[in-house]
Amino acid sequence: MEQGSEHVKCMIIGSGPAGYTAAIYAARADLEPVLYTGLTTGGQLTQTTEVDNYPGYPDGIMGIDMMENFRRQAERFGTDIRNGIITAVDFSAPPYKVTTDGQVTILCDSVIISTGATAKWLGLESEQMYNGKGVSACATCDGFFFKGQDVAIVGAGDTAAEEATHLAKLCRKVYMLVRKGELKASKAMAHKIEITPNIEVLYHTETTEILGNGRAVTGVTIYNNSTNASGLLDVTGLFVAIGHNPNTGVFKDWIEMDNNGYILTAPKSSRTNIPGIFCCGDAQDPTYRQAVTAAGSGCMAALDCERFLSGIEHGSK
Amino acid sequence: MEQGSEHVKCMIIGSGPAGYTAAIYAARADLEPVLYTGLTTGGQLTQTTEVDNYPGYPDGIMGIDMMENFRRQAERFGTDIRNGIITAVDFSAPPYKVTTDGQVTILCDSVIISTGATAKWLGLESEQMYNGKGVSACATCDGFFFKGQDVAIVGAGDTAAEEATHLAKLCRKVYMLVRKGELKASKAMAHKIEITPNIEVLYHTETTEILGNGRAVTGVTIYNNSTNASGLLDVTGLFVAIGHNPNTGVFKDWIEMDNNGYILTAPKSSRTNIPGIFCCGDAQDPTYRQAVTAAGSGCMAALDCERFLSGIEHGSK
Repeated sequence: MEQGSEHVKCMIIGSGPAGYTAAIYAARADLEPVLYTGLTTGGQLTQTTEVDNYPGYPDGIMGIDMMENFRRQAERFGTDIRNGIITAVDFSAPPYKVTTDGQVTILCDSVIISTGATAKWLGLESEQMYNGKGVSACATCDGFFFKGQDVAIVGAGDTAAEEATHLAKLCRKVYMLVRKGELKASKAMAHKIEITPNIEVLYHTETTEILGNGRAVTGVTIYNNSTNASGLLDVTGLFVAIGHNPNTGVFKDWIEMDNNGYILTAPKSSRTNIPGIFCCGDAQDPTYRQAVTAAGSGCMAALDCERFLSGIEHGSK
Repeated sequence: MEQGSEHVKCMIIGSGPAGYTAAIYAARADLEPVLYTGLTTGGQLTQTTEVDNYPGYPDGIMGIDMMENFRRQAERFGTDIRNGIITAVDFSAPPYKVTTDGQVTILCDSVIISTGATAKWLGLESEQMYNGKGVSACATCDGFFFKGQDVAIVGAGDTAAEEATHLAKLCRKVYMLVRKGELKASKAMAHKIEITPNIEVLYHTETTEILGNGRAVTGVTIYNNSTNASGLLDVTGLFVAIGHNPNTGVFKDWIEMDNNGYILTAPKSSRTNIPGIFCCGDAQDPTYRQAVTAAGSGCMAALDCERFLSGIEHGSK
């Protein structure tokens, strides 16, 4: 690997709401940020359709258009946005080394990690075909679109159970599809599922296909791996809640993370265990995972970074 | 005071970015939120002019228009928005009692506090006349508009010093106007001010008037309370950084706060010391105080509130 001669003040990795917001703030503070987009330019929202809950768009907006707005705003203030992925980092001492596309190493006075997370999917072709047309990985985001309708949710853990509870308030009927014979969720969550009248848990149940008319989901076919029976559920929405993977593998030798790979940051802060390395967005948030929470944390990261680069210790005030 | 018969699931107090975002999320989750706007409908942003750094508006937007968008979005999902202020609360036991306009007490299963903060001003008439036309209480927000220009900042504390440092990167010259003979800022911050070449601290200096041409600031007159000399600074911007007061007085008998009245919330959460009472926005944030951080925390409060009302303990997952 070649070590380039480039030395940047502020490197931002990732181009979702967190990364672009960090860029807007960092650029306006004259930190001259360089942003690498990563594999999915614009982040997870570019894979959805309509975004209804990001405050500021009263009539909703397409995810891809929203992220284009974010990008334009970051560029307007002078962010140097580059297509490319980060393949290695060396955070042993400042200036920190960040290698792009396995080729060039850039020296960085500070790094803002906003690499996001990736939803796990079932792996069905029809699932990708109907993603955003009835298939979703976020009940909090998209449940409202299915008000009064019948939906199914795949998953057995706490997040799936919580999302099922959310859906049960909005939808007429919620089928919870659990591959094994029991929930993985906590006792409290499992109890909540049990006492919610319009949630029906189908155990030993796998989703085999998502049916639709090209524009919208019309049902899902299921298979009972205990009885070998097949069946059909008349639902208009399928929520996949089998987990997310934070995109943090490249940092694992340097940055403190929880057991699932989410980066640990200090309370009410974006600071990681290494001074000058900050984290925002879904890469550090297993709980809320919304565009606006990611954007808010991106702003925090840029302001924390500005303080760091000014030599002002955070918390000194 | 009359105790009305009204009982709401989710009461939101305040109508800035935090309150409206909480409302958008709470309404979409069918919590049927009731929102009281407080004295300043739309919050602090309605008193500014252009907002350039809220992600999603690539060309900027007027603060008042942005908050109208937030309001419309909250209403679209069914938030019951009411003009009025909260004059008393009783958080001794659920359902919590919230008194509006000194008259009617509403029973609430949960409360989201998003009452914001109020910037302290010098108290000059010309200051209000040029607010948003060269006078600002937020250098992070508005410093960029004065790129390459000469500005002044009033204040002697850590926030003023930090904002002066921010301005120094963008502006040609920054006058820091300090009423007493020394800074109140920490040693580290004072040192930073000292070594920044384009910051000039004027001690014993009071701002007596803001001059302008009706559309923009053209200078400020100053008075030295040690020498009794008067003077004129040729600046196009005046930043007032003499502090903020969180609007939390009505909660002080119930909710844990820091010494300045900022409400304390759990790390990475909006939970206060009382179950079912949540706080978001500037009322709990002395550090970042941006529209997008407030909005992000409003989303967190609504999701925390939804979990609470569902009987799902936060942190159980």
